[in-house]
Amino acid sequence: MLPQDTIIALATPSGAGAIAVIRISGKGAISMAGKGFRSASGKELSEQDSHTVHLGYIEDGERSLDKVLVTVFKGPNSYTGEDVVEISCHGSPYIQQEIIQLFLKKGCRMADAGEFTLRAFLNGKLDLSQAEAVADLIASDNEASHQIAMQQMRGGFSSEIKNLREELLHFASLIELELDFSEEDVEFADRSKFESLLSRIVDVLTRLIDSFAMGNVIKNGIPIAIVGEPNVGKSTLLNALLREDRAIVSEIPGTTRDSIEDEITIGGIGFRLIDTAGIRDTTDTIEGIGIKRTFEKIAQAQVVVFLLAAEELQASGPGLTAREPGFQLEIEKIRNQYPQKHLVIVANKIDTIAPELIPGLTFDFRDILLLSAKTGEGVEHLKESLLEFVNIGALRNNETIVTNTRHYQALLHALEEIQKVQQGMQEGVSGDLLAIDIRQALYHFGEITGEITTDDLLGNIFANFCIGK
Amino acid sequence: MLPQDTIIALATPSGAGAIAVIRISGKGAISMAGKGFRSASGKELSEQDSHTVHLGYIEDGERSLDKVLVTVFKGPNSYTGEDVVEISCHGSPYIQQEIIQLFLKKGCRMADAGEFTLRAFLNGKLDLSQAEAVADLIASDNEASHQIAMQQMRGGFSSEIKNLREELLHFASLIELELDFSEEDVEFADRSKFESLLSRIVDVLTRLIDSFAMGNVIKNGIPIAIVGEPNVGKSTLLNALLREDRAIVSEIPGTTRDSIEDEITIGGIGFRLIDTAGIRDTTDTIEGIGIKRTFEKIAQAQVVVFLLAAEELQASGPGLTAREPGFQLEIEKIRNQYPQKHLVIVANKIDTIAPELIPGLTFDFRDILLLSAKTGEGVEHLKESLLEFVNIGALRNNETIVTNTRHYQALLHALEEIQKVQQGMQEGVSGDLLAIDIRQALYHFGEITGEITTDDLLGNIFANFCIGK
Repeated sequence: MLPQDTIIALATPSGAGAIAVIRISGKGAISMAGKGFRSASGKELSEQDSHTVHLGYIEDGERSLDKVLVTVFKGPNSYTGEDVVEISCHGSPYIQQEIIQLFLKKGCRMADAGEFTLRAFLNGKLDLSQAEAVADLIASDNEASHQIAMQQMRGGFSSEIKNLREELLHFASLIELELDFSEEDVEFADRSKFESLLSRIVDVLTRLIDSFAMGNVIKNGIPIAIVGEPNVGKSTLLNALLREDRAIVSEIPGTTRDSIEDEITIGGIGFRLIDTAGIRDTTDTIEGIGIKRTFEKIAQAQVVVFLLAAEELQASGPGLTAREPGFQLEIEKIRNQYPQKHLVIVANKIDTIAPELIPGLTFDFRDILLLSAKTGEGVEHLKESLLEFVNIGALRNNETIVTNTRHYQALLHALEEIQKVQQGMQEGVSGDLLAIDIRQALYHFGEITGEITTDDLLGNIFANFCIGK
Repeated sequence: MLPQDTIIALATPSGAGAIAVIRISGKGAISMAGKGFRSASGKELSEQDSHTVHLGYIEDGERSLDKVLVTVFKGPNSYTGEDVVEISCHGSPYIQQEIIQLFLKKGCRMADAGEFTLRAFLNGKLDLSQAEAVADLIASDNEASHQIAMQQMRGGFSSEIKNLREELLHFASLIELELDFSEEDVEFADRSKFESLLSRIVDVLTRLIDSFAMGNVIKNGIPIAIVGEPNVGKSTLLNALLREDRAIVSEIPGTTRDSIEDEITIGGIGFRLIDTAGIRDTTDTIEGIGIKRTFEKIAQAQVVVFLLAAEELQASGPGLTAREPGFQLEIEKIRNQYPQKHLVIVANKIDTIAPELIPGLTFDFRDILLLSAKTGEGVEHLKESLLEFVNIGALRNNETIVTNTRHYQALLHALEEIQKVQQGMQEGVSGDLLAIDIRQALYHFGEITGEITTDDLLGNIFANFCIGK
């Protein structure tokens, strides 16, 4: 089952940079690398210690391709668990290509996507959920998704599942042992202890399954819809929210800032903006197409920011009230139709209202948030309000959060089987029937950590990786 | 003069990949890196040997940022000559940014463009022309430009200049010694040996200066204009030329292929296509605007491919001749106006001509090349013909080729001064006047290798580097 060939790939992002790293892994890594590398010290790579770095030249016969640093890792103390050589060359795409071509000639094979990590898994360096976390870690683009991936890569999630699985396995073997002695009607497995284990497992599984809704939005960004009429200051608000985020990013030249307009990070949590541009000019119609489209957008969001301009408020007695009843009705509609959405009502442009009037503002609805996107006043309060929705506590306490759909499915299946076992216990079904359901639950636990895998499953998982990882 | 602070930058291309490398260099590199790195072995980074790699975690207080490999290089045995730490982290832009931010807090400073290589120069690890070759090497995108940069980085160019400079310096000091004994009228410097050195220097300088025209086009791609009427098969020919090139590139997934339509590599030499699209529909006018524009394009090119369709040829006696005299006149015009351009005349679509007629083709002009871009027949001959123009010999023989405008200018100035010295010798001018011109020549030699530099010059050179190099 373990692979015999030696693979090669560019490990660093493609394109030009100061340096690039080419990775070779497999039984032949050191000897094949040695065929194209002339060390400045004159010593052969195969004579070098593990975890050492060597200056020299990559040479194709007479032709010198590059002056490089070569690092030797001897298995099992390497990323893949195999012998690994990393070539740190000058970061020209031409040189990268020439060096890879050279080692393909020397007997290496181009690595498939994720194949280095697949080998790490096959060699027992990582379990499957840890391996999956590597891809999540590379894709992470904010503190929350990064932290979940780090926790999963360090084995937090796997160890929780593994412990439960071992306890369950212990009871399963006792119950199966009873089957061997079925004529003697013995009970090796303490039924009350077993019941308490089962309810503990149900608790953990339920918590993990519940965490998926949160984990998934954290991983992909929490969908947020900013709803409001034109000219209420949507773009200015977005820029005000982005300001801090952009400032951090721009300190590092060259950091990718793809479509930053659509994704913002607040307090380390990613938010994904749902484009409500199409409905802005029709939101003034309370009934009809306008509000229907708004509602379709709201349905996709987890958080709804209802933005209005403070100019729409007017003096009324000691304070302010809405100039027209329009948006109050809209807000009530949203609230009635989506009671579970986190709704934040924001009155923008408070800089246009006389300051002495602001403290006396009164409304027929609760929790309106006053701010000026232009001056920045009140923007911090909005950020806090957006974050209230996220259960940061769990993140800060390092609680396990499930983000992977495959894990989520396996957990759901495991819970189903465990509940069957619980039901069977209550109905007093025989040990052999219990054993079948327990085996099924164990199977689904094993799917998560990779103790039970199929080639198809592995193919699916690692195909989502980038080449070189 | 030597820098005291510690600099940090991302050394690999920006974007997501399997891994990224962050480089730290300076007196405090190892101690600052140690403040954010917890080794899996428990040993401090400062206790580790040079050129060793260590697994561990980058930690910001309680928060674990990434599981990384850290390589320690102790000065002077490092790229910059200073202590250097390279952090190989997971290739997420978010993680790269967080790690750099962490070490900025620990006391590092963001490196300027080229600052690592500037430090290597200041610490005597590279001379100036070698340092400049690093940038050329990263930018190289074909065999020829790569080979020139490699040769220059390995010091081929510098050592040639340095040897001449030393010999000249030797004579200069003898001549200056004579000045101290001027009343005794002695001659320490053998005038005939000096004259032979001077003429040797003139020969070398002339060869290097002459190589610049070639070096420059090799570095930037040889400009080539494909001239021809619409539908003669320009695009098909381009694709046929590109075929081999693309095939190599596509074996490496992710290799950048920016604007490949405008640049092709033949036999390791880059060719840059000059867009002649604007003139295609007017080339049938022999006189007038059409031909004028064509000629403007041709003026920019080093190689001109005149493409015509074989259909324009017709049976005439035993062979073929031009159906209309048009293109023959055009070709003669090009030849008369630009006798120094390498002109390749190509008749495309020979697959549309009865094969038995081909051997008998006769023309009023020389060297017509018959091919079919569609079937690929004859395309290899065209490639050979394009390469004829390039003095591959010099490249293959590892002769020094000048590609850098700054070097070219310095060589021109040095030649001018040496010629003044020669003239002075013939005219029997006094030693003190000779000495001035020799000093000037020595100054220009020194400019190339960096023995004589100004801060402005260094600033200009290294500002063209990428950050992290």
